[in-house]
Amino acid sequence: MRISKLVGERLKDSASTANVKSHNYLLRAGYLKQVCNGIFSMLTPAQRINLKIQNIIREEMDAVGGQEVLFPVVMPRELWEKSGRYFSIGQEMVRFKDRNDHDMLLGMTHEEAAVHLCQNTIKSYDQLPFMIYQIQTKFRDEARPRAGLIRVKEFTMKDAYSFHYDKEELQEFYKKVYDSYNKIFKRIGMKNFIAVKSDSGMMGGDIAHEFMLLTDIGEDSIVICPHCDYKANMEVAISKEIKPQFENTEKKEVYTANAKTIEEVCKLLNISAIQTIKAVCYAIVGDDTNTVIAFIRGDKEVNEAKLKKIIGKDIAVKDLSDTGLVKGNIGCLNLNLPNTTVVFDKSLEDMQGMATGANKEGYHIKGVNLKRDLENVEFVDIAKVKEGELCPVCGKPLTIKRGIEIGNIFQLGTKYTKSMDMTINMPDGTLINPLMACYGIGVGRALASVAEESSDEKGLVWPMSIAPWQIYFCPLRMDDNSVKEKAEELEKSLSNNFELLYDDRNVSAGIKLTDSELMGIPLRVVISPRSLSNNEAEITIRKSGEKIMCKLDNLNELLKNLINKEMEELNG
Amino acid sequence: MRISKLVGERLKDSASTANVKSHNYLLRAGYLKQVCNGIFSMLTPAQRINLKIQNIIREEMDAVGGQEVLFPVVMPRELWEKSGRYFSIGQEMVRFKDRNDHDMLLGMTHEEAAVHLCQNTIKSYDQLPFMIYQIQTKFRDEARPRAGLIRVKEFTMKDAYSFHYDKEELQEFYKKVYDSYNKIFKRIGMKNFIAVKSDSGMMGGDIAHEFMLLTDIGEDSIVICPHCDYKANMEVAISKEIKPQFENTEKKEVYTANAKTIEEVCKLLNISAIQTIKAVCYAIVGDDTNTVIAFIRGDKEVNEAKLKKIIGKDIAVKDLSDTGLVKGNIGCLNLNLPNTTVVFDKSLEDMQGMATGANKEGYHIKGVNLKRDLENVEFVDIAKVKEGELCPVCGKPLTIKRGIEIGNIFQLGTKYTKSMDMTINMPDGTLINPLMACYGIGVGRALASVAEESSDEKGLVWPMSIAPWQIYFCPLRMDDNSVKEKAEELEKSLSNNFELLYDDRNVSAGIKLTDSELMGIPLRVVISPRSLSNNEAEITIRKSGEKIMCKLDNLNELLKNLINKEMEELNG
Repeated sequence: MRISKLVGERLKDSASTANVKSHNYLLRAGYLKQVCNGIFSMLTPAQRINLKIQNIIREEMDAVGGQEVLFPVVMPRELWEKSGRYFSIGQEMVRFKDRNDHDMLLGMTHEEAAVHLCQNTIKSYDQLPFMIYQIQTKFRDEARPRAGLIRVKEFTMKDAYSFHYDKEELQEFYKKVYDSYNKIFKRIGMKNFIAVKSDSGMMGGDIAHEFMLLTDIGEDSIVICPHCDYKANMEVAISKEIKPQFENTEKKEVYTANAKTIEEVCKLLNISAIQTIKAVCYAIVGDDTNTVIAFIRGDKEVNEAKLKKIIGKDIAVKDLSDTGLVKGNIGCLNLNLPNTTVVFDKSLEDMQGMATGANKEGYHIKGVNLKRDLENVEFVDIAKVKEGELCPVCGKPLTIKRGIEIGNIFQLGTKYTKSMDMTINMPDGTLINPLMACYGIGVGRALASVAEESSDEKGLVWPMSIAPWQIYFCPLRMDDNSVKEKAEELEKSLSNNFELLYDDRNVSAGIKLTDSELMGIPLRVVISPRSLSNNEAEITIRKSGEKIMCKLDNLNELLKNLINKEMEELNG
Repeated sequence: MRISKLVGERLKDSASTANVKSHNYLLRAGYLKQVCNGIFSMLTPAQRINLKIQNIIREEMDAVGGQEVLFPVVMPRELWEKSGRYFSIGQEMVRFKDRNDHDMLLGMTHEEAAVHLCQNTIKSYDQLPFMIYQIQTKFRDEARPRAGLIRVKEFTMKDAYSFHYDKEELQEFYKKVYDSYNKIFKRIGMKNFIAVKSDSGMMGGDIAHEFMLLTDIGEDSIVICPHCDYKANMEVAISKEIKPQFENTEKKEVYTANAKTIEEVCKLLNISAIQTIKAVCYAIVGDDTNTVIAFIRGDKEVNEAKLKKIIGKDIAVKDLSDTGLVKGNIGCLNLNLPNTTVVFDKSLEDMQGMATGANKEGYHIKGVNLKRDLENVEFVDIAKVKEGELCPVCGKPLTIKRGIEIGNIFQLGTKYTKSMDMTINMPDGTLINPLMACYGIGVGRALASVAEESSDEKGLVWPMSIAPWQIYFCPLRMDDNSVKEKAEELEKSLSNNFELLYDDRNVSAGIKLTDSELMGIPLRVVISPRSLSNNEAEITIRKSGEKIMCKLDNLNELLKNLINKEMEELNG
């Protein structure tokens, strides 16, 4: 490819819309163009990376027996009504009416389509397990697209669906795909990634893992034990309970005047936050009449993902006017309000000598013993883990890092096969709904995540396995006829063996070298009047900055070795 | 791939929804599953073909310098308002509102996106010509999906867009892509296809060609001269004018009673249809107040595609009530109605002694001389060519065949670059709007077209270049241990060298052989207790039915030769 014909330009200045490094470089280096908020066109260098990532994913999916299929992007309402998701998914799913006034939707994920494809054609347990997958465009009407390709509305995704006749067989297969995900991310050149336990969210099911690239620009918080193997998304992370024992006293109403916050109440009563009961109020989205009050120990925060899962509905912070609740004095005793759901966090179980609001202006109650003073309370885990709390597995202090979700895998159980009535024959003649698991990787997000991790102050640094081209061939002084002639000759021989981006422009050395670094092509080959006088070319390895002078006769051989070496490291 | 794990079943019976051969076989052989009218899921065999077709297209697009990009499926209204197509395209384009109440659409084609991507990044004539292309999902809300993948709502398409600084340079590039289209269709195994001149329809522009697979199930009529090179879609086809000269007489109103049709009037006046002037009335879609009257010689039919292009708007057959027109007596003289557009076909130019309606109940006018009796009439071509009319190039009789459009290429001119204000610098410093051309191929339609052309009474017959697998490995009597052992051994060695579908089922020879024929895999390798006793396998070539007995030691070599031979023919 000649750079003079390559569509897309290299820009000196930061794009004003880009607030993360990868997005900035991808725009500046001519990889992307924004069409509107969260929707991009991909230029040739980006599309070449997309195809390479897709092929690596395809190879690894095929290696575990995956069968590539293609589901439609547009699906009829009926298919999604069976699973219930036509109604349960919110505005992020696009719905429209076709020319015959029929309700249609743009698929965000394809569990329903997968069951539709397999039911009635897979009939017997001995056809299981199997996995089908597709690589296809998806559209999610994200409320807040951000960071370029990290969170977009339209994206290419690999989504896979496996079917199983029992839990053990599912686990075994799930583990295989888990391993193949590790291989995929390693092969596309990601370094600092981990798999963590996660929430299954709108997919349903129990066990789920996310693959996370650890980076400060990540949206997710990940709880990691540096001492053992424990890793979990904050949404589902737990820590080891430590419960101080306070003196068991009579409960007693005390005047606390304007003390409203935990801090103010603690100061007044001369206790620490751990001896208080905090109330956090939520509304149920789409239902104005109800209030959810979460009680949690004053030193802890509510994990809304956990609470949402327990409530089974979307929640949002509640405006307390017209609820009868006294802001800053809400407590767990004498709370007799209609239409209120009360949830108690595990941190409060067995606690005594605690302070809570008195549900009247200016008063709190001291000496609350939750076992003694409350009846029929179930304590559930709705707490957020904090840095330094203790690992639930090994008991040592936990750390919290930020990450980008680069892949996810879910054990779905029978949610879809049951609701859509897919059955298979078991050896004993009974009919069962098969178990399912699903597995996703966003191709564009993978591209952007690698760009984020593998870049430096000069620009992008693509791993050899997914680089748009392997070599940036960069003759300097194209106005010199001897350089131009040699360049055209070398271009021909090199492009027979390598993927070559040929900088055929007659511009300054500065522009050419800067562009090659910004674009992040792994190897740069420079020839100039001076190097040619020694019959040499200069090879620069983008990743390390290392420079190698090489006789032209050995150029092919040396480039081949450098490429093979990096590919072996990535595939190893 | 083991057939016991392959998702999708082979069916004995015709699917009731399938009314063409290819669709029937694709459903029966486990290639497709319908999700709803015009929307399909593709199973693994079909998706493997899709990917092979895509790769052939990609290779040929790259060979003429194409740069692969990826445009979004979902685009904002603003982009399509600039070109005017947000309003000019009808119900076939899906429009919806996003969560912020913003108008969005599903792209049916990507001229606007292509200009958006290139403008401001391509600035100078010396960057031209170039071509960008994508392979992407498209959705068109077709009123009448039909014939399986031949006409669907959702499909994968390769669409390419080239940019040019003058007409000559455009023509040169257009010819290159024209040639590459011929290569693509040949390589994917189409035989009986031709390129014909066509209408540019909603794309705008002048010169356009369609690539047509000739087949009786085709929706298009194609006018072909068997004697010279003339080929054109009926929509734009012309024939050589032959004008009989009738006697020039005075015009005279005659009583024709209830004679309304051309046939009745001819019988009454004792003339032939060629001596009459036929009136055909149309409404303009979306505009109830206007009427279009097309006058054409009585022996000819109106070509609505041509008429539509002249009117510049969609037309439909008109209901004549409340128009003031007298049905069966409409004529071209004394026709003074408001809101009426009148169009005269070329066939009437210079005609004399003609009969026309008198615009009053029961009367016609004889002896009309169009030059003498009408003023300021422009005659334009709105006639349909009929079988046997004479070729406009060589003058010999034309034939009419039916075809499926498998690809199309358009010279668009500056329609999009002008409306979207894309400019480039010319050497003399002037700014111009570059010329564009666009080039489409539907991947699924190509698959179905090959299936339609390459199939026989037993099932599908895939060309080697796009076959889902090269070899159907078919051991008979899998209950025989010696067969099973040998089969597993051969499967290993064969799948190292070939794409193998392994029929590992323990079912009857009849089922296995029938399935292999239905699925259309090019080569079948059968082993059985008898063949193994001679240390042989039987190879059957699906296309010819030819059978070859082959020693197991030579199997690899012979299969390689057979595959290479067919691939050379296809790529030749």
